[in-house]
Amino acid sequence: MKQHAFFGLVQAELAAVERELASVILSRVDLVTDIGGHLLRAGGKRLRPALFILCAKGGRPDPAGLVPVAAAIELIHMATLVHDDVIDNAATRRGMATANARWDNHVAVLAGDFLFAKAFALIAAHGAAGALKILTATICAICEGEISQAKDIFNPDQTEGDYLARIDNKTANFIAASCELGALAAGMPDADVRALRQYGYAIGMAFQITDDVLDITASSEQVGKPVGNDLRQGVLTLPVLYALRHSPRREELRQIVAARNMTDEQVRKGLAAVHATDAVEYCYRQASDYLASARRVLPASLPAPVHGALTDIADFVGLRKY
Amino acid sequence: MKQHAFFGLVQAELAAVERELASVILSRVDLVTDIGGHLLRAGGKRLRPALFILCAKGGRPDPAGLVPVAAAIELIHMATLVHDDVIDNAATRRGMATANARWDNHVAVLAGDFLFAKAFALIAAHGAAGALKILTATICAICEGEISQAKDIFNPDQTEGDYLARIDNKTANFIAASCELGALAAGMPDADVRALRQYGYAIGMAFQITDDVLDITASSEQVGKPVGNDLRQGVLTLPVLYALRHSPRREELRQIVAARNMTDEQVRKGLAAVHATDAVEYCYRQASDYLASARRVLPASLPAPVHGALTDIADFVGLRKY
Repeated sequence: MKQHAFFGLVQAELAAVERELASVILSRVDLVTDIGGHLLRAGGKRLRPALFILCAKGGRPDPAGLVPVAAAIELIHMATLVHDDVIDNAATRRGMATANARWDNHVAVLAGDFLFAKAFALIAAHGAAGALKILTATICAICEGEISQAKDIFNPDQTEGDYLARIDNKTANFIAASCELGALAAGMPDADVRALRQYGYAIGMAFQITDDVLDITASSEQVGKPVGNDLRQGVLTLPVLYALRHSPRREELRQIVAARNMTDEQVRKGLAAVHATDAVEYCYRQASDYLASARRVLPASLPAPVHGALTDIADFVGLRKY
Repeated sequence: MKQHAFFGLVQAELAAVERELASVILSRVDLVTDIGGHLLRAGGKRLRPALFILCAKGGRPDPAGLVPVAAAIELIHMATLVHDDVIDNAATRRGMATANARWDNHVAVLAGDFLFAKAFALIAAHGAAGALKILTATICAICEGEISQAKDIFNPDQTEGDYLARIDNKTANFIAASCELGALAAGMPDADVRALRQYGYAIGMAFQITDDVLDITASSEQVGKPVGNDLRQGVLTLPVLYALRHSPRREELRQIVAARNMTDEQVRKGLAAVHATDAVEYCYRQASDYLASARRVLPASLPAPVHGALTDIADFVGLRKY
């Protein structure tokens, strides 16, 4: 697992979350344990549980309740990734074989369901009814975001507004929920709970926008999946939507998208049409605006180390290259 | 929805469950609502919520809590069916197009996740923490059962014991949980909760065995999917496992199974090898033994109409032809 400096404050809790995850995936059925182990070894930034715990440290949380909810948050995230990879027919994630590639779609769909169920079992075992309500609404929103995305696949007429609504549902809302749950666990006043939710929302929007930029700029070694993957799958992201309006080659790009089923050469041409604009700069500016608002809404009353770490995370999201 | 006489006692509640289901699937995203509506129109026997409510009527349940939990139970069942159909590449269920056939795998995986989340949201909204624990364990068992099944696909060396463990996980445990949750909602003493759980387990084992027999005996009009579907998919059920031991044509059957990728002609020959034995009779005998034990464990203290309806359900499972 990659560790960032701003996670230092929650390092002990994140280590406990890893132990909880390793124990949760144990099953009577060896194959289930194998799949869970594979997914855990693939790692991840653990951004959502880290934000949850950091926000909780803004107040006086019950320490016994933090790790199970943090682990449940990460399990839900893992489950959505496993199902995403089935849906996208993805072969690799984070440089490792996906569950659908290593086993098959059958097993990957079920492994995702298993992780969802384990997440809710953890919450049930710790009687966190409020967390349950927020997290189930989060999953519904993710599904709605992903289904909207499926509906708009290869559709060059979708707007930036459609895109923003979709990444709100599929990404920002979940990160917002992680921060909100932390603030609730901390016993913060309503205004601070709302502020940290807003912070998470803005971080999430910026995170997804930079993720979508990386899909068209980063090498496959950096992101662990092929470059231009979204475009090839027909998922039109902010830089591509921008280029569909502003690129001198926008007609060519439009035709490539509308024809579906792109060859490698067409993906290359499509990416070139995007890079013929200032799309990347435009997207980073958008992300940067969200991050500025994230920093702005942080309650001044937060303990300095927590405030500092949350600010550092906003800085990191704007700079990340993988 | 097919209505059986023994559901008469819970007709009002089942109608309320249908209304709850119809309202739960409403989404901001039209396509999500469309998919949910399609799944609801496909109907189903509503066996699990009916058993839950019937068992609850064995005592004094809080009426306000019954419908949401019953709806959550059915939503979980619907979600597992939607994911099953993705996994099996099934084109029809109950005579209607499956979600993966009507839309695609992408949308069907997400629709299943959406239904799972809505189920837990219902439970969260009604603060049924005990139900949550039992239902999450049920989903984990279903996934484990299905993953075991995936592992043993086309494997002629699996035993009847493997089969029984699998259908326990994937079917009987869920029906047992529905009855147990009813008994808990009724406030029954521990011994009766255990007895109704056992009743549900036995009903579930018999139900899955007869379901597996119907796959090789019923016409596609009766079951709403092609005959011999399990065999073609490599899912070896009790009658096939019996024939692999006892059929005069067992070597031919073994070769057909082990070769995978069956033609229609090979499926036909495989089914003929099964029908050359008393496999169907053997399976009905097994189912009948489970049903006898289901009737036997019913607490004598149950109100007569509830006792009668639960007995009728046991009779129905043994006789059903679809």
